[in-house]
Formats: sequence, structure tokens, C-alpha cells
Amino acid sequence: MNPINKQTCQARLETLLARYLPPDDGSTLIKAMHYACLNGGKRLRPYLAYQSAALFNTPLEIIDPIAVAIEFIHCYSLIHDDLPAMDNDELRRGKPTCHKAFDEATAILAGDALLTLAFEVLAQAPIRENYLNNLKIIHNLAQAAGPTGMVKGQALDLAAQGKQLSYEQLCQMHRAKTGALIAASVQCGAIAGDASKTDLEELHKFGLAIGLAFQIKDDILDALGKSETMGKTPGQDVKNQKCTFVTLLGLHHAEQSLAECYTQSLAHLASFGQKAEALRSLSAYIVGREI
Amino acid sequence: MNPINKQTCQARLETLLARYLPPDDGSTLIKAMHYACLNGGKRLRPYLAYQSAALFNTPLEIIDPIAVAIEFIHCYSLIHDDLPAMDNDELRRGKPTCHKAFDEATAILAGDALLTLAFEVLAQAPIRENYLNNLKIIHNLAQAAGPTGMVKGQALDLAAQGKQLSYEQLCQMHRAKTGALIAASVQCGAIAGDASKTDLEELHKFGLAIGLAFQIKDDILDALGKSETMGKTPGQDVKNQKCTFVTLLGLHHAEQSLAECYTQSLAHLASFGQKAEALRSLSAYIVGREI
Repeated sequence: MNPINKQTCQARLETLLARYLPPDDGSTLIKAMHYACLNGGKRLRPYLAYQSAALFNTPLEIIDPIAVAIEFIHCYSLIHDDLPAMDNDELRRGKPTCHKAFDEATAILAGDALLTLAFEVLAQAPIRENYLNNLKIIHNLAQAAGPTGMVKGQALDLAAQGKQLSYEQLCQMHRAKTGALIAASVQCGAIAGDASKTDLEELHKFGLAIGLAFQIKDDILDALGKSETMGKTPGQDVKNQKCTFVTLLGLHHAEQSLAECYTQSLAHLASFGQKAEALRSLSAYIVGREI
Repeated sequence: MNPINKQTCQARLETLLARYLPPDDGSTLIKAMHYACLNGGKRLRPYLAYQSAALFNTPLEIIDPIAVAIEFIHCYSLIHDDLPAMDNDELRRGKPTCHKAFDEATAILAGDALLTLAFEVLAQAPIRENYLNNLKIIHNLAQAAGPTGMVKGQALDLAAQGKQLSYEQLCQMHRAKTGALIAASVQCGAIAGDASKTDLEELHKFGLAIGLAFQIKDDILDALGKSETMGKTPGQDVKNQKCTFVTLLGLHHAEQSLAECYTQSLAHLASFGQKAEALRSLSAYIVGREI
């Protein structure tokens, strides 16, 4: 029934990203864009868009360019977050970060280029010639990525270094930094599927719930010293004096918060019945993953 | 007849930009966005969009959000170009550059936020409910700004430091770095005015011609030591060992190339007759300006 799973989604994205990236012209800029995108990432956000679209029986082909654009935006954010002026990280998925593999100027430009290319792709995505849906998707993603979404989240994150945050502040930061784009990915699949306003709202809340779950789980894994297997430099949270769900709540209560997010995420899928089984599994996967 | 001139356009943009920017919430990010945009810039690109739209009797109100988005993209590019890893410039329009007034992380994020916000604005611009025109404008601007346009140009510029370029290479670099966005600004006004394909092509060529003229004139002014009055740090071209039209051709031949660009720009306006008088004046202004 459902024609895509996490593995086929990963393989599909690897092919699609290579097709939508500018062809290698020997320039450092294009090489850096390929390097930062074609690295076997989990492709969680594209997977969410496909599975959300599947609720409305939308063919994979319609989601392809949207999935590519979402992943371009995600990859750009990782490049810029890793920069020396930001998180100053040297490893990403077990490989040197973009500014380490190339140089800082190239990394900044490769990020800028991927962000811009995402919107170029979305402007040409054929969504059953319903151009208003293209515009809704562009608006959704831009809002999730921009100064009230992901960029704001990163700014809040930088400003929070060495400071104690309240639970609400920590949630607000992560909602902006990662939750907004995850929720938008779910929504964009649904928009392409002509979802109703009610369905869009439920899926948005589902996205925010799994986005928060994802972050809490990340913090738990980091605290348990498993970040090395995640391909990141271990101990970054401590080094950067980051306030995490574990440092704030303790491990036990962080696990409880995680369970609550999981329960909430399922509640927002209730109205979709059997069709939402893949999204339910994904939510369980986020909560249960070991890397 | 023509309801906007360079001065009223400047004033209009100052008001519009303030309206479309996120309201000051006390955060450094939003302050940096305001700082980088609300600085009395020339607003050349928005002016081109208005004047191009005027050829097709398009009301100013329809161009307003497009003009704002274009200027957001321009301002983002200036912030990122000035960064230490790039041109490492300390002054912009006579004031500290964004990373000097704030910090490097904030400057990177403010640029990212402005670029993203530009597409959010374009996705909601009411262009007579012709949604395909929104998409064409988004596509045009993204293409002009992305890895085959402005970002490529900046990468070429960085790669060219300390190297001798041919005239063709220098033109190619500037066509990507500044020409593409100037030409897209002219085209976007025309797209909003439902221009024909032929008209769009002529206006694109007009845009490329004045874009090149703008750069040659910049190089001439820099060589004549007038860059201080332009609000930039003087002598940057020499300091960065930049190949310019003056270092390549000499002052006399650079002036000749400038004159040729001017002639070409006028040729591409011929078919528009009397209506294109404002664009002709603008071309003359670019060639004749002293700052």
C-alpha cells in the first residue's frame, strides 16, 4: 500500500539530490554543495513529507521536488550552524564539516546557495498545476526557516550559551530551531495533497510534537555518551555549556517528557486512522532510536 | 505620468522595508536585520522593478512586496560579502558593517534571515491573483541570487583574488555577481506587468548592460579615489589585489567600455518608445554618477 519506507526514501533522496544539484563544474562552490548534501543523511524531513502526502494518496513524484527543497534547507542550516562563528564544530556525520573540508567562505556560500536553490526548485515544482499550493508550500517553508523559525532558534541557541533556561524557554528555542522545519515538512506533504485546514492543523501539531521528541532524545543520547556513534564530536553540549533537557530536568524527567511528546504525537494522528501507521512508526522510531 | 522617481522610491522603500521587517523584539537578530536594511541605500534594484513595471502600466502597490524582497536579497548579499571570511570589510555606506556593529554569528544569521524572508514575502505578494506570476518572479530571483548567479559571482570573485583575469572572465564574474540580480529586478517588474516574452528578453539584456556599466563605473570611481565618498573603505580593490576593469583595461579603455554598455542599454529600450524615458535616465545616471 505505502510505497516508501525509510530505506527507500534515503536511496530516493540520494538520487534526487544529485539530480537537482548543479552539475559538478570543477568549482569549489559546487563541490561543497555536493559534499554537504550527498552524505547519507537520514532524510527524516523528506520522509515526513512523503508520508504525510501519502495520507492523501499523493504520488511520490509530486513530492520529489518538495522533498529535495526541504533537504536543501536542512543541509544549508547544518553548514551554517557548524561555522566557527556559530557552533564551531569539526565533525558532521563522522566527516569533516563543510568549512573544514573546504574553507569558511566556501561554506558560507554553499549554505547560501542551497537555501536559494531550494526556492528555485519549489517555484518550478509541478503540483498538479495548482500554483497556489506551490505558493503555500514556499510560504510555509520560508516561515519555518526564517527569522521567526529556524534562524531565530539558532540565534536563541547562541544567546543561551552558558545561561540557565527555563523549560518553557528551552522548548521555545527548539520549537524554532528544529521543530518548525519538521512541522513544515509534514505540512508541505499535506498541502500538496490538498489537505483540509483541520488536517493541516493536526499534522502541524504532530510535527511539533515529534520535533520536540527528536531534540529530547538527542539530548538523552548525548548525555549517555552515544553522540560519537551519531557522527558528531562527543561532549559538544558540555563544551559549549549548553542547557539541554537532561541538564535541566535530569535523565529521568527528560525520559518522561519524551514519553509525553510521543503520546501527544499519536493523539494528533488519531483522526487519520490506519493510514497514519507509517507516521506512528516514525514517531516510535524517534523515541526509540539509539543513534 | 510616471508616479515614482529615485527620491520618492528611496522614501517609499524606507517605509516599506520597515513594515515588512519583523518588528523589533529586542533581539540582536532583528536589530541586525533592521540595521542592515534601514540605512538609506540607493534602492536601485527596487527602482528598476517599479520603472520596468511602469512600462506595462502596473500600479506601484503591486510592485511594493517585490521591491521589498529584491532589496532584502541585496542587503543579505552585502552582509555576507562583508564578512571576515569574505571581503573582510569594516565600512558599508559610511557605517560599521553588520558583523562589526554586532558580531559575526549575528551577521551570518541576519543575512540568512533576510534571504529567507524575501521568499516568504514573494509567496504572499498579491499579483492580481495570477499565482503563476508569483512563481515566475520567485524562480527568476532565486536563479539570479543562487549558485548560478550572485553566489557563483561572489565565489568567482574570491577565487580571482591576486589573479589576472581576461576581459571575458571579468565580465562573466560581474554578470553573475551583480548583473544577474539587477537584470532580474528589471524582469520581475515586467513579469508583474504581464510582459511578453520578447519584451522580457529585451529588458533582461537592458538589465545586464546597466549591471555591467554599474560595475565598470564603480571601478573607475575607485581608481579615481572617490570610494571614500561612496561610504566604503577606500583602496579596498588594491588591498585585496582585485582585478578591475581599470587595472585590466586602463582608465581610458574602461571609460570606452562604459560608453559601449550605455549605448547597448539604450538599444534594448528602443522598442518601448517614450515610456522608457525613466529607464534611459537611469542608465545615464549610472554612467555619470560621481558617487
